[in-house]
Parts: sequence; C-alpha cells; structure tokens
Amino acid sequence: MSLILASALISIALNPLLFSMVEPIRKLILARSAFARRCDARTDPFAELPMTTDRKYLAKQVVLVGYGRVGSRIAAAMQAQGIPFVVAEQNRELVAQLRKEGLAAVSGDAADPAVLIQAHIAEAAMLVVATPDPLIIRQMIDTAKTLNPEIEIILRTHGEEESVLLSKENIGTVFFGEEELAKGMASHVVQRFSVTEHGQ
Amino acid sequence: MSLILASALISIALNPLLFSMVEPIRKLILARSAFARRCDARTDPFAELPMTTDRKYLAKQVVLVGYGRVGSRIAAAMQAQGIPFVVAEQNRELVAQLRKEGLAAVSGDAADPAVLIQAHIAEAAMLVVATPDPLIIRQMIDTAKTLNPEIEIILRTHGEEESVLLSKENIGTVFFGEEELAKGMASHVVQRFSVTEHGQ
Repeated sequence: MSLILASALISIALNPLLFSMVEPIRKLILARSAFARRCDARTDPFAELPMTTDRKYLAKQVVLVGYGRVGSRIAAAMQAQGIPFVVAEQNRELVAQLRKEGLAAVSGDAADPAVLIQAHIAEAAMLVVATPDPLIIRQMIDTAKTLNPEIEIILRTHGEEESVLLSKENIGTVFFGEEELAKGMASHVVQRFSVTEHGQ
Repeated sequence: MSLILASALISIALNPLLFSMVEPIRKLILARSAFARRCDARTDPFAELPMTTDRKYLAKQVVLVGYGRVGSRIAAAMQAQGIPFVVAEQNRELVAQLRKEGLAAVSGDAADPAVLIQAHIAEAAMLVVATPDPLIIRQMIDTAKTLNPEIEIILRTHGEEESVLLSKENIGTVFFGEEELAKGMASHVVQRFSVTEHGQ
C-alpha cells in the first residue's frame, strides 16, 4: 500500500511540473516536425471553415489563394459582383480579420492539399492563384486538378519565362504583372491621345 | 635653323606616341568627369534624332522613356494605333535596332535633360515613363514640366508607397504593376464567372 501511496504522492507532486512542460514541448515538436505541424493545424479553428458557413461558399465558388496586394484587390472585385469565394491565406491574423468581415477564409500553406480541401476545391468553379511562388503554384494545380478535373484555373506569375512556360502547359489562364501594367498604360495613352487629337 | 630642325625632328618622333595617348586619356577623362561624358554624348549619333526624322515625331508626339518589357509593349500598342512617338532608351544597341525598324529613338540616361530635349519633349503631347526608378522619374518630370508645362505625364511605379506618394503629388497618371495585374485577373474572373453561371 505504501508503494501505491508513494507513487500517488510523486505523481501529484510532479503534476504541475509536467503540465507546465506540455506547452514548451509542444512548441519544440512543432518547430522541428512538419508532420506534427500538419496534425496540429487540423485542430486550428482557422484551418477549416466554420460549420455555419453558407452553402453558397461550398460549391461553384471561387477559391482565391493569397490575400496580399493582388489577392485583396481581386476579392474586392468579386465581392462587388456578388461572386461567392473562399480565401486561402497563410496569415492567420488576416484570416481572423476576414472572418470578422463575414468572408469565408481558411488559413494554411496552400501547397498543402488539406488547405485546398478545406476551401472546398472539389466543388469549386475556379481556382484563382494570387501568390506568385512557382513551387506553390504547381503543387496547388496538381491538387486542384486531381480533386476537380473540370476546375478553371487563373494564375499569376512574376517572371516572363515562367509565364511563357505555364502558358505552354495549358493549365489555365496566366497573368503576368508587367504585361498587365503595359496593357493598362497603353490603353490609357491610346484613349488620352485620341481625346487630345480630337480636341485640337 | 638647327633649333627649328631639332624641334621638328622631336615633334615627328613624339607624334605616334602622342596619338597613341589620345584615346586612353579620353577614356580616363570620360570615366572621371560627368561633364565630359555629357559633352562626348552630344557627338554620339544615337544621342540625337537624325536630321531626316519625320516632322510628325517632333511635335504632339509621345515621348516614351524605356524600351524594356513594359515600354516595348506600350510602343507596340501605340504603333498599332498610329500614334507617333520617340523612344528614349539607355541601351544604344536597342536604339540602333529601333532605328533600323524605322522608329524614332534616342539613346541616353533620361535623367539627363539633354536626352529629353533631343526627344523633343518641349513640343510633345505626352511623356510616358516605362522605367520604374523613382530617382530618374523625378528628374524627368522636372525637366518635362519646365520645358513643357502643358505636357501630360503617365508614370509607372514599382512600390505601392511610391505609387500613393506620386498620386498625391498630382503630377500625372500613376500606374502600379500589382494593381493592374489585379484588375486584369479580376475582370477575367468576373467575365468567366458570369459565363459559367449562365451556362449552368
């Protein structure tokens, strides 16, 4: 009996110490293992859409990856047009903010299939990639096409070579920053010039 | 007499040596003095428009600074619309190439007023800046506005802060790459989405 009592006493004595060690150990494991991070992410409320999410965001919607300077502008245009979309964004604070504003958003690295799955890619009408990282882009396209072969893909690229390469692969509509810039400037010049011409 | 003969002989003997020193000394001076570079540039046939340049390029034209990925695309759009323009571009080989194609072009650093003057900025209808360097941009705007207060200015910027700053200064129409990219992608999404919606 004294042995059991002794163990109980030791256990009780160690309890606060063990508990205080849980969080640092968890952080250590998360920092060292990608697998642990992935498992952990599944319990993160921002990594999946809330159960209360409106049905319209779960099918025939647009999945928008990245809510930076480009993504946020695309989102604003879709909102103005009443197009339903789910944002997939790495920054958790941004996802929390978007949810506060009533938007559907999930957090996580979009190269991880789980993130696109949570954004209901399987039923989506379109995948719009507003992040320019070519490695993430290929992984995402693979996931999207596997889960939803009919999905329409709209991509953004940074470099001209990457843009030509992706266009050749025929996986979607590729947009290249400097080309769009030139288009915008040129159409302004053409329009202004015709005004000047006719005005004088 | 022997003195004159002696000087002549010395001079003749030194002649090849002096001539061989002209080019290295010229290079040394050009490398050390911005003023000398500027004087030297005036004798460069690519630094000024040929005398045979058509009148239409010398007044009410567009001065396009920079013929890179953005500038060349704007040039193509202007050509398609029959808008007369003069290109100011730092790369001499590119200027030579453009002249071969029958375009009006001058070479030089557009931050140097002489380059804009050679592009006939004083009579131009518009200045289109397709290079994103903010320092060059300000110097160019100063020159252009001084020589032609009525000129319409169209600018390209790289950063969002710079874009906001230039817009506030109200010196011209400012285009920002990522904004134009977002516009292009968003309008494609909106258009495609309405097709998908109506198709199903």
